[in-house]
Amino acid sequence: MKNKRPWLDIPEESDFSLQNLPYGIFCRPSSIPVLGVAIGNYIIDMNMACQKGVFQDFPLDQNVFERSTLNDFIAMGRPYWTYIRTVLQEQLCNRDSTLAQWASLILVKQAEVHMLLPIQVGDYTDFYSSQEHALAVGKLFRPHQPLMPNWKHLPVAYHGRASSIISSHSPVRRPWGQVLSDESAEPIYTPTRELDYELELAFVVGKDSELGQPITSEEAEAYIFGVLLFNDWSARDLQRWEYQPLGPFTSKNFASSISPWVVTLDALEAFRSPPVKQFPKPLEYLEDPTRRGFDIELSVSLRPKNGSWYPLARTNSSYLYWTISQQLAHHTVSGCNLKIGDLLATGTISGPTKGMEGCLLEATAGGKEPVLLDDVHSRHYLEDGDEILIKGYCQGPSGRIGFGNLQTRILPAHT
Amino acid sequence: MKNKRPWLDIPEESDFSLQNLPYGIFCRPSSIPVLGVAIGNYIIDMNMACQKGVFQDFPLDQNVFERSTLNDFIAMGRPYWTYIRTVLQEQLCNRDSTLAQWASLILVKQAEVHMLLPIQVGDYTDFYSSQEHALAVGKLFRPHQPLMPNWKHLPVAYHGRASSIISSHSPVRRPWGQVLSDESAEPIYTPTRELDYELELAFVVGKDSELGQPITSEEAEAYIFGVLLFNDWSARDLQRWEYQPLGPFTSKNFASSISPWVVTLDALEAFRSPPVKQFPKPLEYLEDPTRRGFDIELSVSLRPKNGSWYPLARTNSSYLYWTISQQLAHHTVSGCNLKIGDLLATGTISGPTKGMEGCLLEATAGGKEPVLLDDVHSRHYLEDGDEILIKGYCQGPSGRIGFGNLQTRILPAHT
Repeated sequence: MKNKRPWLDIPEESDFSLQNLPYGIFCRPSSIPVLGVAIGNYIIDMNMACQKGVFQDFPLDQNVFERSTLNDFIAMGRPYWTYIRTVLQEQLCNRDSTLAQWASLILVKQAEVHMLLPIQVGDYTDFYSSQEHALAVGKLFRPHQPLMPNWKHLPVAYHGRASSIISSHSPVRRPWGQVLSDESAEPIYTPTRELDYELELAFVVGKDSELGQPITSEEAEAYIFGVLLFNDWSARDLQRWEYQPLGPFTSKNFASSISPWVVTLDALEAFRSPPVKQFPKPLEYLEDPTRRGFDIELSVSLRPKNGSWYPLARTNSSYLYWTISQQLAHHTVSGCNLKIGDLLATGTISGPTKGMEGCLLEATAGGKEPVLLDDVHSRHYLEDGDEILIKGYCQGPSGRIGFGNLQTRILPAHT
Repeated sequence: MKNKRPWLDIPEESDFSLQNLPYGIFCRPSSIPVLGVAIGNYIIDMNMACQKGVFQDFPLDQNVFERSTLNDFIAMGRPYWTYIRTVLQEQLCNRDSTLAQWASLILVKQAEVHMLLPIQVGDYTDFYSSQEHALAVGKLFRPHQPLMPNWKHLPVAYHGRASSIISSHSPVRRPWGQVLSDESAEPIYTPTRELDYELELAFVVGKDSELGQPITSEEAEAYIFGVLLFNDWSARDLQRWEYQPLGPFTSKNFASSISPWVVTLDALEAFRSPPVKQFPKPLEYLEDPTRRGFDIELSVSLRPKNGSWYPLARTNSSYLYWTISQQLAHHTVSGCNLKIGDLLATGTISGPTKGMEGCLLEATAGGKEPVLLDDVHSRHYLEDGDEILIKGYCQGPSGRIGFGNLQTRILPAHT
């Protein structure tokens, strides 16, 4: 495949090279949702492609492409995913293919459609797998003990809220809640003054597992379909007051945003990163002889209302201490079952140097040192009207493997 | 209705009096799941009742009763729930009714069918609303600060795991996990040695709410369909090691059991309890001028393998500090949305005196003082083969409003 060139023009800076082929759900104006695959500036209408015979060599249930989520397609399993990927790559490079012949019907301009939430999420789990982030936040919340004694022995995580997972371009309203302000001994009811984003990745479960049956770290990746960009919105003042002893609740459950495109593990396979040194050595069930991370460049930018974009941070998922295989092995160690569409998010991804902080809490040292956008603008936390853009990509020799834009605007609190 | 007597014989000690009429999903041998309503020793086959014209005065979608969960029926809304309740109570007291006429087809013996998980749970939230329990457990986990400063200001909660919610009579396998044993500085990988039950109630959400729109405590009960018995299985040694700083994870997500029957709020309306004194006064969004609890008698019993039943504890839901209205108002304060079938559990329900502990952690003072079952048997925590039975009922003048049995056996850990 590597020497072949697509007959379709793919801009060099596009997230959607021939090696990517991520999945999403799109909607034409006044039409029903359809499963699509991104390529360059286009989307392959998978339902139309199927109708026209692009996938004729394999018994595909056509209706699986005329759905409002990817779940049923994912449930068809890895042989189908691989078949689809192979056929699309082949036909996108063959001017005589069925896909090329019906291109005017099958290819849809991305600019002309609306992207929907790609996954129906059953359960969503948020890990805490960046050591740099855990240390920086720990210093702010618990100066006497930044990194808990358990942190290097297991991938710490909490169960998040699935109902409030929203698509890119769905706005987030500044939440109200309880805050213990410094001036008073009693909590107050107020819109959050410390609204923050969290730059994360989320792995999408591709296969059901059985209740009571742990998954080993070796077999863990067989349970993963792909990866999304993830923004776990957080109200830091609510969080500080409520999180003891059972973890964050209203400070996190008001919204989490996911990217429109799910990039498959197949596409990311060429962009694995060497294992991060783990000391002490984790227990055997967390050991993974082939342990590897992912080398995904990540960035977050902010645009004030009526302003222009300012870069806030750049980081990389290869800094993560715990891998998805370890997270999944730990998640199921006690027998918890996974279902197709469940999300396992990494937690905020930070890096070892300044400018690599995956959230404002960390970048501003707990709201004490503002992040300067330019001579005029700065931020302690997010302001109404701000937009946050998260991007991620791997740069290959024949193009990018990217996730598209995860972009969200902040609405003012209800009065 | 109160003066009318049903033509059906209902044993005095039955959970399922004419005033109850709880909903569940049952299955005849080799048949498909059907929605049922319990009455005495019988179940009303709602699909058959509908086919025979019992509900002819209201436009009911018949298929809503031929489902494997209650969710679609619940989605029909309160006017339907009320209509169904009224019709059933009326026809169960009228020997000339359609229901009486077709009784041999519509009524199914409970002993002849299998009960299934009644609800498809989207998200499950576990509160921590018993002050007696929070204090007792807090003393064990954090002797220096048993009740956190936030506890009396907000109903503390964490997001639980929905995928591992199981029906009554589904066994629970003793989980493996990480434990920091007292003898060593390093954690070990072991089957839990501190397996525990948690006696709880769970409220079933009956109406979707909108993302970004808090629900007030006054309107909260309009979002509740009914109540279940709930057992939030816990591995205390895993919990102690993992829970800081983000809350319980593998120690809880391996299983939670729910009762086969959902008792409606309509049925419980006659069994409301006076408000528990709350000091300090909660913030305005948590205030509820009509604040009331529920007077539900609760019990938990244990049966060792090949043994007989021993009572472990008796308590009552009226001891709970926070009400469902306050829990729901707090859950949505930051804008989190609720979906039909979501569960809001109370947390372990304990009471003010000895013998009212809702879990073994509390009853054994952290595993230090065994609970004596008789001269031979005692328990620190649960043993393989043990069965736990949770029951709950309200005793009315014309019979009981009960939940049926929530019964679970412990399987040994995988080797």
